[in-house]
Amino acid sequence: MVVAQVIIELKKGITDPEGMNTKKALNLLGWDVKDVKSGKIFEIDMGDDVSEEQAVEQVEAMCKRLLANPVIQTYEIRMIEG
Amino acid sequence: MVVAQVIIELKKGITDPEGMNTKKALNLLGWDVKDVKSGKIFEIDMGDDVSEEQAVEQVEAMCKRLLANPVIQTYEIRMIEG
Repeated sequence: MVVAQVIIELKKGITDPEGMNTKKALNLLGWDVKDVKSGKIFEIDMGDDVSEEQAVEQVEAMCKRLLANPVIQTYEIRMIEG
Repeated sequence: MVVAQVIIELKKGITDPEGMNTKKALNLLGWDVKDVKSGKIFEIDMGDDVSEEQAVEQVEAMCKRLLANPVIQTYEIRMIEG
């Protein structure tokens, strides 16, 4: 089973209200946190019929086409064998 | 700079509508994807004044108190040195 983990985060310079509010809440609760960035993660199960290289290639295409917005987001692909 | 990455996912058996719809959309676009799980990620910058052990301990407390809902979510903490 080939499983890909896709981490999608906002590019530098793009305002991250969720991260900012999470930081504020953590500070109010007493933790000395300097910065919080928020993002999304997808775990994509590609089944058994693809090689790891094919999977990376396909997941990269999925990110470009559907999962991430390349104008404001970056993505990172990690392979996990399930 | 001590930075912690927190990955928050739904527990097994909890319905994941976002993951299900992402899977459906990827299938419609022609990719043979077996399953998609969605989740959230936070990157927490703890500054320079804490050790890695202290940071893990504090981030674990943050997860329990604010970041994750232990009834339906699991969390995983990874340390990244920035």
